[in-house]
Amino acid sequence: MREKVLLREVGPRDGLQLVTTIMPTEQKIAWCRAEIAAGVKEIEVTSFVAASVFPQFSDADAVARETLTIPNLDASALVPNLRGAKRAFDSGLRNIGFVVSASEKHNMANVHRTTEQSLEEFANIVAERKARKATNRVRLSAAIATSFGCTIEGAIAESRVIAIAERLARAGADEVILADTVGYGNPSQVRTLFAAAALALGPMPLRAHFHDTRGLGIANVLAAIDVGVRRFDASLGGLGGCPFAPGATGNIDLEDTAFLLESLGFDTGIDLEAIISVRAMVEPLLPGQHFFGMVARAGLPLGYQQRDAGS
Amino acid sequence: MREKVLLREVGPRDGLQLVTTIMPTEQKIAWCRAEIAAGVKEIEVTSFVAASVFPQFSDADAVARETLTIPNLDASALVPNLRGAKRAFDSGLRNIGFVVSASEKHNMANVHRTTEQSLEEFANIVAERKARKATNRVRLSAAIATSFGCTIEGAIAESRVIAIAERLARAGADEVILADTVGYGNPSQVRTLFAAAALALGPMPLRAHFHDTRGLGIANVLAAIDVGVRRFDASLGGLGGCPFAPGATGNIDLEDTAFLLESLGFDTGIDLEAIISVRAMVEPLLPGQHFFGMVARAGLPLGYQQRDAGS
Repeated sequence: MREKVLLREVGPRDGLQLVTTIMPTEQKIAWCRAEIAAGVKEIEVTSFVAASVFPQFSDADAVARETLTIPNLDASALVPNLRGAKRAFDSGLRNIGFVVSASEKHNMANVHRTTEQSLEEFANIVAERKARKATNRVRLSAAIATSFGCTIEGAIAESRVIAIAERLARAGADEVILADTVGYGNPSQVRTLFAAAALALGPMPLRAHFHDTRGLGIANVLAAIDVGVRRFDASLGGLGGCPFAPGATGNIDLEDTAFLLESLGFDTGIDLEAIISVRAMVEPLLPGQHFFGMVARAGLPLGYQQRDAGS
Repeated sequence: MREKVLLREVGPRDGLQLVTTIMPTEQKIAWCRAEIAAGVKEIEVTSFVAASVFPQFSDADAVARETLTIPNLDASALVPNLRGAKRAFDSGLRNIGFVVSASEKHNMANVHRTTEQSLEEFANIVAERKARKATNRVRLSAAIATSFGCTIEGAIAESRVIAIAERLARAGADEVILADTVGYGNPSQVRTLFAAAALALGPMPLRAHFHDTRGLGIANVLAAIDVGVRRFDASLGGLGGCPFAPGATGNIDLEDTAFLLESLGFDTGIDLEAIISVRAMVEPLLPGQHFFGMVARAGLPLGYQQRDAGS
């Protein structure tokens, strides 16, 4: 029995956030179905944000509803505030993600709130979950954006990130995500910050959300693995970025991350050949988008034996 | 005092090997001068191979002669056989690299010899060094290509790589390079193989030569650092590949590797801003070549403090 690692596809949310093409709902659903068939278990399928600002997510309710019909899919959605959370709770999704930036200025740019106001909003979302009988078992995942630095503020103190993580945990988060939103993190920092978070939060599940903006994304996954992190976000072809992070060229590539993890002996459940085929299916749907990642281009090593793929 | 790491630029050799543009000698020299000014200390400047097969290296003698006039440059050249080594010895270079493939079939494709014949040829080169008074102090570096797998043979047994490394060490190598010529290696394998080589070879300096063909190159550097490796090869913009490795899309990117190592607290001597400028100078000289690497595109993080850069 190999140790399992959870690898969540965030392409339909984080990946599409900056893409100018509006992907039709049925294509998003086909993408999700193909990934589940390839062994992906978790997908962040949409974002409950204002359709006027993000028209690519104007179909959030329909996407959530459709993805609930896909067997074996643990679908999640991002919400920036209570308003979005209410829509997400209404949708029937069992997994909802909230985000607050460790950087005060990034948080203001992203959600027009102070960090403190966002933390209070998270408490409101937890209260809303409790107030509704049907949503008592909905998991709330809390992401701390710019945990490894910010394009507006520069370095972010580790103590600040840990203090926010503790606040989110105490408020009722079921998972805490340390996000390198702008691709500033390095393996040394990753080891230090995740070890500090594990020490501060005890048994709370931690997830790493890395971007490959400066080429260290996959090395950061290795560093996080070394200190016990077993949950990661990635996106097909490394799609994505951040509207307030100039030059932030995307999430870590899902195929390369799966290749790394499988090569290290972990069980991602993902069939590598199959996920490379999904990429070939999605790439033509997003004309003009650069798809990053290397293993899809080069193919698997000759004689590469993926152990019990798709398990 | 930060610990030093040697980061050798192999672009003018490994990088140009597959490039169709023939770079004029003066451009190669300008490239080398610019890199030395950016703090690079070691450059593999050319290859002493048949000009009929590799016209891009027909100026090997001139390049070697010119690079000897560049202050602070530790210039090396690759030789596939004694014939090439004699030219290299004649040139006055103080550092000569030999290569043998762990894969029998790759070695045959690359240098038309069995592995055993290549090992005997290395012994001949060591004897030639001894026979010439002037070359007694020339360092011989011995690279084992396809140490992490081969596009023709698939997996390569670790015991075979270690046995070849021991032969090269006993024959008189001053440095042994484990090369992932085709980008098959993963961090787990890197840790295991380099640890085994260190155990077998004792104080012999080891160098890692990684390609980023499947996206794990920078993570492999981190893994090698973890087991004590302090010498690496890389190329500007990730130029390079291997003529017998289809889809092998290049060495690890020099700028990203330097960014990783400096971020981990090591002293590469390389000024990151300056090396990014060198890339901007070289890229137009190789029209149609794809330059890989991320940090040059995104820029350094805001407020990034490189400690005593250029030292």
